[in-house]
Amino acid sequence: MSAKSYLSISPEVKKALAEGKPVVALESTIITHGMPYPQNLEMATNVEQVIRDNGAVPATIAIMDGRFCVGVSGEDLERLAQTGGTAAKASRRDVSALLVKGEIAGTTVATTMQIASLAGIHVFATGGIGGVHRGAEDTFDISADLEELSRTPVCVVCAGAKSILDIAKTLEVLETNGVPVLGYGTDDFPAFWARQSGHKVDHRFDDVADIAKVVAMQADLGMGGVLVANPIPEADALDPAAIEARIAEAIRGAEQEGISRKALTPFLLKRIFELTDGNSLVANIALVENNAKVAAGIAVALAARNSAKPATYRA
Amino acid sequence: MSAKSYLSISPEVKKALAEGKPVVALESTIITHGMPYPQNLEMATNVEQVIRDNGAVPATIAIMDGRFCVGVSGEDLERLAQTGGTAAKASRRDVSALLVKGEIAGTTVATTMQIASLAGIHVFATGGIGGVHRGAEDTFDISADLEELSRTPVCVVCAGAKSILDIAKTLEVLETNGVPVLGYGTDDFPAFWARQSGHKVDHRFDDVADIAKVVAMQADLGMGGVLVANPIPEADALDPAAIEARIAEAIRGAEQEGISRKALTPFLLKRIFELTDGNSLVANIALVENNAKVAAGIAVALAARNSAKPATYRA
Amino acid sequence: MSAKSYLSISPEVKKALAEGKPVVALESTIITHGMPYPQNLEMATNVEQVIRDNGAVPATIAIMDGRFCVGVSGEDLERLAQTGGTAAKASRRDVSALLVKGEIAGTTVATTMQIASLAGIHVFATGGIGGVHRGAEDTFDISADLEELSRTPVCVVCAGAKSILDIAKTLEVLETNGVPVLGYGTDDFPAFWARQSGHKVDHRFDDVADIAKVVAMQADLGMGGVLVANPIPEADALDPAAIEARIAEAIRGAEQEGISRKALTPFLLKRIFELTDGNSLVANIALVENNAKVAAGIAVALAARNSAKPATYRA
Ligand SMILES: [Mn+2]
Ligand SMILES: [Mn+2]
Ligand SMILES: [Mn+2]
Repeated sequence: MSAKSYLSISPEVKKALAEGKPVVALESTIITHGMPYPQNLEMATNVEQVIRDNGAVPATIAIMDGRFCVGVSGEDLERLAQTGGTAAKASRRDVSALLVKGEIAGTTVATTMQIASLAGIHVFATGGIGGVHRGAEDTFDISADLEELSRTPVCVVCAGAKSILDIAKTLEVLETNGVPVLGYGTDDFPAFWARQSGHKVDHRFDDVADIAKVVAMQADLGMGGVLVANPIPEADALDPAAIEARIAEAIRGAEQEGISRKALTPFLLKRIFELTDGNSLVANIALVENNAKVAAGIAVALAARNSAKPATYRA
Repeated sequence: MSAKSYLSISPEVKKALAEGKPVVALESTIITHGMPYPQNLEMATNVEQVIRDNGAVPATIAIMDGRFCVGVSGEDLERLAQTGGTAAKASRRDVSALLVKGEIAGTTVATTMQIASLAGIHVFATGGIGGVHRGAEDTFDISADLEELSRTPVCVVCAGAKSILDIAKTLEVLETNGVPVLGYGTDDFPAFWARQSGHKVDHRFDDVADIAKVVAMQADLGMGGVLVANPIPEADALDPAAIEARIAEAIRGAEQEGISRKALTPFLLKRIFELTDGNSLVANIALVENNAKVAAGIAVALAARNSAKPATYRA
Repeated sequence: MSAKSYLSISPEVKKALAEGKPVVALESTIITHGMPYPQNLEMATNVEQVIRDNGAVPATIAIMDGRFCVGVSGEDLERLAQTGGTAAKASRRDVSALLVKGEIAGTTVATTMQIASLAGIHVFATGGIGGVHRGAEDTFDISADLEELSRTPVCVVCAGAKSILDIAKTLEVLETNGVPVLGYGTDDFPAFWARQSGHKVDHRFDDVADIAKVVAMQADLGMGGVLVANPIPEADALDPAAIEARIAEAIRGAEQEGISRKALTPFLLKRIFELTDGNSLVANIALVENNAKVAAGIAVALAARNSAKPATYRA
């Protein structure tokens, strides 16, 4: 069977792709593992609306019923949101086993890129990518997202890597893997909840049309993905020093309670939520909506580029 | 020249592939570097018989006379077994140089996968894969097997990674590389000589037909290899704590004698053989035969899947 | 657009490629960032002459005016040399952004390989490749050159890795990545300024025709690049212990002055230049010319192989 035969694309997304209209992919672990029902459903619906308000069609991606579902909506989106944390979390290594088992699964950055690319979608909005975990010099715990970015020609709009990670090492691996890290309106690589990480992006662009050019060129050259780092809006940003202190406190708590590696990320996110009186989640939702807006802008610019060419030159 | 032009496939294997019959690849460093002649020849012949007894055609792979040989048998197998440790050991980096020099070489997991895939064989039985060496946080010594698994669509049936390795780090790199680690009839990732390593597999399957589905799907999706972890039979298994103590003792011995990196693996295997009164080798042979049996089952299920489809749908 | 549409190939190089004549690619960060104007222009011209004297056509590669320029010469070479250190340094992650911005950039080993391969050039001469930085167990600072070598079928002739790097770890990563490291007339992996690093190559070849066979075979097999390690000529070599002591001294100096990671390589090269009374630069130029000569020999042997075949068998 061909890879495409595993896709179930919604009629709206299929029509948009066929007509060369702008489409923005969305991941679903934020729905299944990011927050409880019905808050997750509300968030997902709002993010989709932001993409529509900015001229693009949203395509939420998940693995359901043995299929790669692109454009999950209505009852299926409700079912995905209700399943929540009891759904699987599909990293690249899990995809085939989950399809065979017919399980419902939220897709990570890596698998959302993979499925988006298969469906012909080139722009994807998320919160923050996975990366190199703190302590990875001893544990070797590095997200599959960094490999996927080196291989799959999709533009991922994020607010940096999740800042419980080791940002410096994450940027080093991205460089080794040849992944362009573009700052949208910034020279600084953002730190998810905060606007700055103390590290620089590779290249700054202030215009989504230029970013669309880079995305098109990476695809032309067979060079893999593009990471667009888009800082959280000032009004929603947390203070870099304050949030870093909360992260450090959460990490100390994990060590004292002997929290093991697999359980660490959910533990840290929950502790940081508590330590910030819930502000970390408010900021998280704000930055995802902000990324959806910028991703829509890039998708619109990309569609305009393609429609400006004679049909025979379309990718 | 095309890649396939370097292949010399035996008439029996060629016929089986043409007719869509089940074929199982076997590596040859276990023959050249695993044990002395004529014990190695006897082991190789027995493993091939296990595959035949379970309904598949064995295809021992080696590099000989400037060719990728698939289905080494008769005089050639005798020659390979007699050459033994004076043969080269062909990792991916060695393949082209060895072909040019016309040297005889045993193939590792990585190069057996590469050649099997080139020949159209999708299932391969071995003892244990290479992985991340203990101390790799300082030495960066990581087997090329882990890269090959991320790239080449072959199902490798093993009893875990060789347990002189760092199992936790090996599993982390497999996750980063997007390789599915499936447990056959087990939730635990086995530790080669022992049935448990203290780490979990990604997904458990109790039926070879389901594993065959995953293998077919990985190939359809262009996603690289599948690692099937198949624990050593209970009757042959060594006690996890006892064998780990022997490994630790062997490592201390290597440190005291100042054994360098390249000589370390053969030194450790020899010491563990001595420290277990030869039981480590008996267990090694038992687990290889057990893997051959499971691999044959997967190959038979895969062939049945393919023959169930109209000819035009065959891969 | 196709990847090839980004190429601007000089008439001389285009003609040579069309006629199957030997061509050797050259990188340009040595021009932009390796030494000041006009010394860099003189060096570049001399290296091109060495290639011509040995029967091949030189193709200096750079990114200029939004194009991949292959065979930079005349006014463009002058402009590149004059721009010098104010030019960008194009690693794989920078390529698309630099094309969009229309910036002038020297190409590293990784991007020169990428562009050479796109243009149909299979042999490339440089000084030393990038690799694993000393301290990378903590910083994760590993050059993109090592990934490009695993992927792109170009033969890179060098005098080893720049010896401010961690040579042992660099060789381990090359092994993991499946890259053949061939010694030309040597069993020892050279240490850039010195003829020996204390580490072995994978395979020694004394005849460029055999190396050409390996290069052709890697391409046939879809296996990525080949690293040819060619020691600096005896007359120009520095004493291994003496230069290692200078490197250690330079590293201590960097630590004392708190030189940060990004600024470290240029700082070290400048300090080593001073500590060796300029001999490090003299040696650097000598080894580049020596690599150009060997690369020309390999390119000539490769062209002879191809022209010996009927036209229909040409790659
Ligand atoms: Mn992980
Ligand atoms: Mn190794
Ligand atoms: Mn670096």
